[in-house]
Amino acid sequence: MAHSHKPEADALLDKEFKVLDHGFVRLVDYMGTDESIVQAARVSYGKGTKKISEDRGLIRYLMKNMHTSPFEMVEFKFHIKLPIFVARQWIRHRTANVNEYSGRYSVMPEEFYLPRQEDICFQAIDNKQGRSEKAIPPELQKEFIAYLKKSQKDTFEGYSRFIEAGLAREIARINLPLAIYTEWYWKIDLHNLFHFLKLRLDKHAQREIRAYAETMAEIVKTVCPMAYEAFMDYRINTLSFSGPELKFLHKTLKTTNLKLKYLTDMGLSQRDAVEFLEKIETIKKQKK
Amino acid sequence: MAHSHKPEADALLDKEFKVLDHGFVRLVDYMGTDESIVQAARVSYGKGTKKISEDRGLIRYLMKNMHTSPFEMVEFKFHIKLPIFVARQWIRHRTANVNEYSGRYSVMPEEFYLPRQEDICFQAIDNKQGRSEKAIPPELQKEFIAYLKKSQKDTFEGYSRFIEAGLAREIARINLPLAIYTEWYWKIDLHNLFHFLKLRLDKHAQREIRAYAETMAEIVKTVCPMAYEAFMDYRINTLSFSGPELKFLHKTLKTTNLKLKYLTDMGLSQRDAVEFLEKIETIKKQKK
Amino acid sequence: MAHSHKPEADALLDKEFKVLDHGFVRLVDYMGTDESIVQAARVSYGKGTKKISEDRGLIRYLMKNMHTSPFEMVEFKFHIKLPIFVARQWIRHRTANVNEYSGRYSVMPEEFYLPRQEDICFQAIDNKQGRSEKAIPPELQKEFIAYLKKSQKDTFEGYSRFIEAGLAREIARINLPLAIYTEWYWKIDLHNLFHFLKLRLDKHAQREIRAYAETMAEIVKTVCPMAYEAFMDYRINTLSFSGPELKFLHKTLKTTNLKLKYLTDMGLSQRDAVEFLEKIETIKKQKK
Amino acid sequence: MAHSHKPEADALLDKEFKVLDHGFVRLVDYMGTDESIVQAARVSYGKGTKKISEDRGLIRYLMKNMHTSPFEMVEFKFHIKLPIFVARQWIRHRTANVNEYSGRYSVMPEEFYLPRQEDICFQAIDNKQGRSEKAIPPELQKEFIAYLKKSQKDTFEGYSRFIEAGLAREIARINLPLAIYTEWYWKIDLHNLFHFLKLRLDKHAQREIRAYAETMAEIVKTVCPMAYEAFMDYRINTLSFSGPELKFLHKTLKTTNLKLKYLTDMGLSQRDAVEFLEKIETIKKQKK
Repeated sequence: MAHSHKPEADALLDKEFKVLDHGFVRLVDYMGTDESIVQAARVSYGKGTKKISEDRGLIRYLMKNMHTSPFEMVEFKFHIKLPIFVARQWIRHRTANVNEYSGRYSVMPEEFYLPRQEDICFQAIDNKQGRSEKAIPPELQKEFIAYLKKSQKDTFEGYSRFIEAGLAREIARINLPLAIYTEWYWKIDLHNLFHFLKLRLDKHAQREIRAYAETMAEIVKTVCPMAYEAFMDYRINTLSFSGPELKFLHKTLKTTNLKLKYLTDMGLSQRDAVEFLEKIETIKKQKK
Repeated sequence: MAHSHKPEADALLDKEFKVLDHGFVRLVDYMGTDESIVQAARVSYGKGTKKISEDRGLIRYLMKNMHTSPFEMVEFKFHIKLPIFVARQWIRHRTANVNEYSGRYSVMPEEFYLPRQEDICFQAIDNKQGRSEKAIPPELQKEFIAYLKKSQKDTFEGYSRFIEAGLAREIARINLPLAIYTEWYWKIDLHNLFHFLKLRLDKHAQREIRAYAETMAEIVKTVCPMAYEAFMDYRINTLSFSGPELKFLHKTLKTTNLKLKYLTDMGLSQRDAVEFLEKIETIKKQKK
Repeated sequence: MAHSHKPEADALLDKEFKVLDHGFVRLVDYMGTDESIVQAARVSYGKGTKKISEDRGLIRYLMKNMHTSPFEMVEFKFHIKLPIFVARQWIRHRTANVNEYSGRYSVMPEEFYLPRQEDICFQAIDNKQGRSEKAIPPELQKEFIAYLKKSQKDTFEGYSRFIEAGLAREIARINLPLAIYTEWYWKIDLHNLFHFLKLRLDKHAQREIRAYAETMAEIVKTVCPMAYEAFMDYRINTLSFSGPELKFLHKTLKTTNLKLKYLTDMGLSQRDAVEFLEKIETIKKQKK
Repeated sequence: MAHSHKPEADALLDKEFKVLDHGFVRLVDYMGTDESIVQAARVSYGKGTKKISEDRGLIRYLMKNMHTSPFEMVEFKFHIKLPIFVARQWIRHRTANVNEYSGRYSVMPEEFYLPRQEDICFQAIDNKQGRSEKAIPPELQKEFIAYLKKSQKDTFEGYSRFIEAGLAREIARINLPLAIYTEWYWKIDLHNLFHFLKLRLDKHAQREIRAYAETMAEIVKTVCPMAYEAFMDYRINTLSFSGPELKFLHKTLKTTNLKLKYLTDMGLSQRDAVEFLEKIETIKKQKK
C-alpha cells in the first residue's frame, strides 16, 4: 500500500478558495482518507471488529461512541489568509501546528478586511456576543465603512512612512488594525478539526470565522466523505436533552407503537433502531 | 484574596480513599474552586456577564454552551495506586501531568490485583469490550482466582530471586503481570478531568477503572459542587438524538400545551424553559 | 500535609507588578513549591533516589538530565494585562490555559501601549527580527510617538461613536490597533513556564514581551528558588557547542592539570566535577 | 504542487523493519519532506528569509535557533509492534496520536519478548536506571531466560484456557506479563519525533526502546535528510556547559589565534564561524 489519497481530494490541492474580501483557504497537503480511519480502528479493535465489517458502519460507530482516536490518524495542512481578529479566535484551538507570517521579519502588506454592507449590524440583545437581525439604517452602515476605510488608509500611511524611515518593523507595526490580513500554515488532525468545525460552524461563532469554517467543511467532505457524514449526523444535527429537561420530555410523548421493523425499513441500522427505542423507553421512565 | 480553597475540600487532603483491593486515590493538592471558574469567566465575558450574575447560573451556562476554558482554571493533583492494566487505559488521557513509580529505579513491591469473585464474568456478546451479566459457575470463578494467585506468586518469586542475584531491575521486571500495582502522581485541570470522568464513569469503561473514576467524582463534587452538578446535568444525565433519529422522534410526540410558566414553576430557569420549548418545536418541524 | 505553600510566595499573591505603561502581571494563585518537585520525583525514582537525598541536589539533577515531569507538578495562575501584539506572541505557547477578555462581549477600554522614546529604534541588520542599537534622531522618535497617539485617538473615537450608535461590538472593534491592551488569566505548569521564559527572556525576543518574562521570572524565583536556580544554571547561563563546532574546540585547549579535588573544593559536586572532566576529555578526543 | 513526497522515502512505505525478536517498525504514511519545512518557514519569515536562501542553510538556522514550528509541518505515521514494557515508556510522549490493539476487544496473541543472552546484565551502580557492563556468569543469564520462558508459557496457557471457557477478555488478560507484544499506530510530527529520538537514543534510555529509536532515526534520515543532519549536529552531537562549569572552562583555554578565515575554509558558514569565536570570547570573559 502506498499513501492513502483520493483523486477528488488531490484535485483540491493548492486551489485558493476565496473567503471574505481578500482571504482564502488552500489545502496544501493531507495524509489519509476514510480508509485510514478504518485501518487504524481495525488495529485497535482487531478481531472484535469483524462484525462491523463495513467501512461506513464502522466510521459511524466510532463517531457515535466517542472513539475519537482513529479520526486523529488523518491530517490536514492548510494555507490560510485571514484578518488578525479572526486569527485571534482561531489560535485558541491549541491542538494544531502553526507557522504565521511575522511582522517582525517582514513588512505587512496593505490588505484589510472591509465588511460588506449587510455584515454591519446592531448588537444582538439576547446573544451577548453577536449581531442582531434588526434592520439598520444603510447610512449608518455606509458611515462605518467610510470610517474603516479612512482609518485603515491613514494608519497604513504612517506605518509605511516609518518603515521607509528605517524604524524596526516590530515597533512600527503596533498601530496596525485588527482588520489587517495575515497568513499562516495550519496543520491539524481530523478529530481536532471536527472540534474546530463544531465550534466555528455554530451560529454563535462570529460570522467572519464561520465563513472559513464553511469552506473547510467542504474540503473535509471531499477528503473524508464518510467521516464528514457521521460528524454531521452525530455532532452537528443532533438534539440533546439535559437531565433537568428530561424530567419534562415524557410529558410530550404519546403512546406509540413504533416498531423496530418500521425503523429499519426506513433506513436505521438494526443497532441504531434498537438504541432509539431504548431512548424512548428511558424518557418514559422519567415519569415515575 | 488569597488561595481559593474550601474547608470541606481541605478536609479531603491526604486521605487515602481505598479502591479495589490494594489501590487508592489521594488528593494531594488542588488549586481553585467553583469561585475560580466564575472569576475566570468574568474576565472573559467582562460586562457581558452582568446579567448572568449568579455564580451557579453562570457555571451552568458555561457548561451548557461548551465554554470550557474557565473550567481549565481549576487544577487537581492526585496520588493514585492502581494495577498496570488500569494505568494503561488511564494514560491515554494525554492532557495531564504524570510522575510514575519506576521499575527501572526501584524494586516493584509484591502487590497484585485479585478480582473479587463477582467481578469474574463471561465475555459480553453485544458489548465487545465488556463483561456479561449472565450467570457464571462459581467453580470457574474460583479456578480463575486460583490461577491468578499461583501465577502471581510464581512470577514474583522469580523476579525477587533475580533481583537478589543482582540483575538489572529494568530487565528483571519484564515478566511481571499487568495486574501488579504501580503508583503515580497525576495532575489535571477540571475540564480535562470531566472529560476523563465522562469516559471512565461510562458503563462501557472497564469496571476496575470505573471504580477509580467514581472515587474521584466524589472528590470533585466536594471541591467544586456547582461545576459537578452542571457536569452531571449537561454531560452525564443527558439524552442525545442524532440527525437520523430526529426524523423519527416527532412520531412519538403528542400535541401538548406545555407552558413556559409551568416549566419555570417546576424549576427550569426562564432561559432553559424557552430553549426546551424551542427544541420541541424543532422536533415537530422534522415532520415536514 | 496540607497545601504546599510558602509565606514569601503568598506575600506576592494579588499584587500588581507593573509592566510597560499600562500592563501588569499578577500572581492569582499557585500550587506547589520546590518541595512538590522533590515529592513527585521521589514517587518516580522511589528507593533509587535515596542517595540523592538532598532537595537542592535532586532538583539540579532533574534539571540537568531533562527529567522534566516533576517540574510539571507545580502550577501558576497569572492575571496579565498586555498589548494585543504581545498577546499574539504569547499565545503561541500552547501548553497553557487561557481566559481572555472578549471584545465581542464587552466594550474595549481606551488603553494603548505607547513606547518610551528609547524603545523606538532602527531595524537591526544582522538580527532580522529586532532593533538596532544604532543612534536614532530624537525627532524621528517623537514623530513616531505623535503618529501613534493621533492614530490611537482617532481610531478609538470612531470605535466609541459606533458602539454608542449600537453597532455589534464584534464588528465595531475590527479597526482597533494591535497596541490596545487586553487582559487574560493564564495558567501554566512550571516546566512549560520555564520553556516560555527560556524563549522570552532571550535577547531575540521582542523587548515588550521580555519585560513580562522578566517580571514573571522574579515571581518564579520567589515561589521555587531552587528550581529557578537550576533553570538559570542549566538552561539560561549555558554555552552549547554543536557537532561542527566541537571539531574546532580542541584547538583552543591547553594541557591542564585541572584536578577533581580542585573543582570540588571550588564548589562543584563530585558528580558534576567528574562530568566536567569527562567533557574536556571528549573535546580532546575530537582531535583525532 | 501536489503532495510533498520523495521516491527514496516512498520506497520505505509498508516495509517491516524488524526490531527485537518479534517487533517491528513500519512507516505507514508520511506528509512532507525537507521541502515542507522550508516552505512553512518562508511563510513565517517572509521576505526576511531572502538572504538565507539556501534550503540546507535555512533548516540548520531553524534548528540552531530553536525555531521549532516549521518542523511540526512534517508528519509521520508508524505501525509498531513492541513489548508492553516498552510501550509504557513510549506512551509518556504525549504529543502524538495512538491507536493500540485492545486486549478487551481481541484475544492477545502468544508472542513475548525474550532478551538475547547478552542483553541480560547486572544492575548498574552509577546509573541507577540501567545495566552494568560488568561480566555476568552465563549460567545466570541462561537461568533467567529459562525462567522467562517457563513463566510466559504457564501464564499464557492459563489465559488461553479461561478465554476458551468464555471469560471476559478484559479480565482474563490481567496476568499477562509486561513482556507480551502489543501493536499500535503512532502518528507524530517531526519536531516531537526529534524530541522522542533525543530522549530515546540516549544511552540512559532502556536498550529495548533504543532499538526502536535507532530504526526510526534511519527512516527519518531518509525522509528528511537535511533536517536529520541538523538534528544530529545541534541536538545530539553537542556539548553543553552549565553556568557553574563555565567558571572553570577558561582555565583550559590557551591563547589561540583561530582566524575566521580558517574556520570558514574548514567548512563552517560565515555566521557559524562568527558565533564560534564569540563563544570562545565568552568563555575567556568568565575569568574576571
